[in-house]
Amino acid sequence: MTRRRRIYEGKAKILYEGPEPGTLIQHFKDDATAFNAKKHEIVDGKGVLNNRISEYIFNHLNAMGIPTHFIRALNMREQLIREVEIIPLEMVVRNVAAGSLSQRLGIEEGTPLPRSIIEFYYKNDELGDPMVSEEHITAFGWASPQEIDDMMSLAIRVNDFLSGLFLGVGIRLVDFKMECGRLWENDLMRIVVADEISPDSCRLWDIETNNKLDKDRFRRDMGGMLEAYQEVARRLGLINANERVTGSGPVLVQ
Amino acid sequence: MTRRRRIYEGKAKILYEGPEPGTLIQHFKDDATAFNAKKHEIVDGKGVLNNRISEYIFNHLNAMGIPTHFIRALNMREQLIREVEIIPLEMVVRNVAAGSLSQRLGIEEGTPLPRSIIEFYYKNDELGDPMVSEEHITAFGWASPQEIDDMMSLAIRVNDFLSGLFLGVGIRLVDFKMECGRLWENDLMRIVVADEISPDSCRLWDIETNNKLDKDRFRRDMGGMLEAYQEVARRLGLINANERVTGSGPVLVQ
Repeated sequence: MTRRRRIYEGKAKILYEGPEPGTLIQHFKDDATAFNAKKHEIVDGKGVLNNRISEYIFNHLNAMGIPTHFIRALNMREQLIREVEIIPLEMVVRNVAAGSLSQRLGIEEGTPLPRSIIEFYYKNDELGDPMVSEEHITAFGWASPQEIDDMMSLAIRVNDFLSGLFLGVGIRLVDFKMECGRLWENDLMRIVVADEISPDSCRLWDIETNNKLDKDRFRRDMGGMLEAYQEVARRLGLINANERVTGSGPVLVQ
Repeated sequence: MTRRRRIYEGKAKILYEGPEPGTLIQHFKDDATAFNAKKHEIVDGKGVLNNRISEYIFNHLNAMGIPTHFIRALNMREQLIREVEIIPLEMVVRNVAAGSLSQRLGIEEGTPLPRSIIEFYYKNDELGDPMVSEEHITAFGWASPQEIDDMMSLAIRVNDFLSGLFLGVGIRLVDFKMECGRLWENDLMRIVVADEISPDSCRLWDIETNNKLDKDRFRRDMGGMLEAYQEVARRLGLINANERVTGSGPVLVQ
């Protein structure tokens, strides 16, 4: 493991050189961070859960013809992915007001939005990932108008699928973050879904209780983050009711 | 004057009922405010200068077939305008990085932008006029996609005209704020330029010296605000070299 070439280390993941050209290994760490890494903790088992949940979602996206960077799971913390050129934008797809949208526009958390809203943020830790509009994106060449259209189409499809998936297991998809990359194949470029989709990057509320099953438990010091992620994995059928996930994988509990 | 019905009082202007239905009187005050009115001063003569400069610009826009709310000047502080339904958005058209764009995106003030960028801000003092994208605007019904297109077309035309006008008098138009309204005539609605265009709403830098001839002198405690506004009026030929503007109008100086 240690002999592999490390391509990039982010706050929650590491990218290693893959076994073949054009592939990478995406490794999920247990680091939980928020507020641009001002807040940081190690949550034993989080990486295992996010890898498992993200793998499950990306496998389904691929099967539905929604192109992604995902190839296959490798082990409890790692997946094989295609190397893409990451577009330096985070898309946030929102169905219900929460978080920064509630603060910026004065809309109470939990208010359903008139329609789904897609926001773009410029990926730049130093600047705190500022929100940008299509005007900034095209003026600075971060993505072309066609690429923005493609990204928004992908975001809508992913939102439709995830909304249905989570609804089916009693969870409201409030919002989620998505990243895209450019994938070249035979001199053709297409935009694909990249990064991860997990309780780290979604707001997931229990439909009955509005209980938060996502990273807001960490951001807002609510406690029970790992238990919430386990609950999501459990509802998706990825771990059994009598399993608990630790840093070394699922273990049976009494 | 005091018997007129006051329709609305803003930070720098008052709107009174006009002489005919569908008209209003726009009165320019001497109040200078910044940072959502946290900073406030009276600058004797500012209203007179802004009324004069804005009148000059709006007269030219009308003559060029760029529709505006402006009808005609009434006196030193007042203009007759058409009553419009103000769209609750401020557009900022930027040619050179400055102010909040520089801060948010980490681009040094004075850097020319790759192309002009149009930003939208939701007009809401309580929320501090948050930046919004077309997604928010259409989702919350503040303007329709067609109206956004119309507003952007107007903004580009106004930017082209103002850039040329100011260039002609040795001033770089760094950016400016513009508002639009819906004007109904014979059951037809069209989008028109509203509010004012003045050194209060533009960033204007002397081309040779980069000396600021706009409200940043007030925002940044640089002093010489009124003198800067007078310089703009003087270069536009609106006051003579030997005139100085006070609260009661231009006076001759030695």
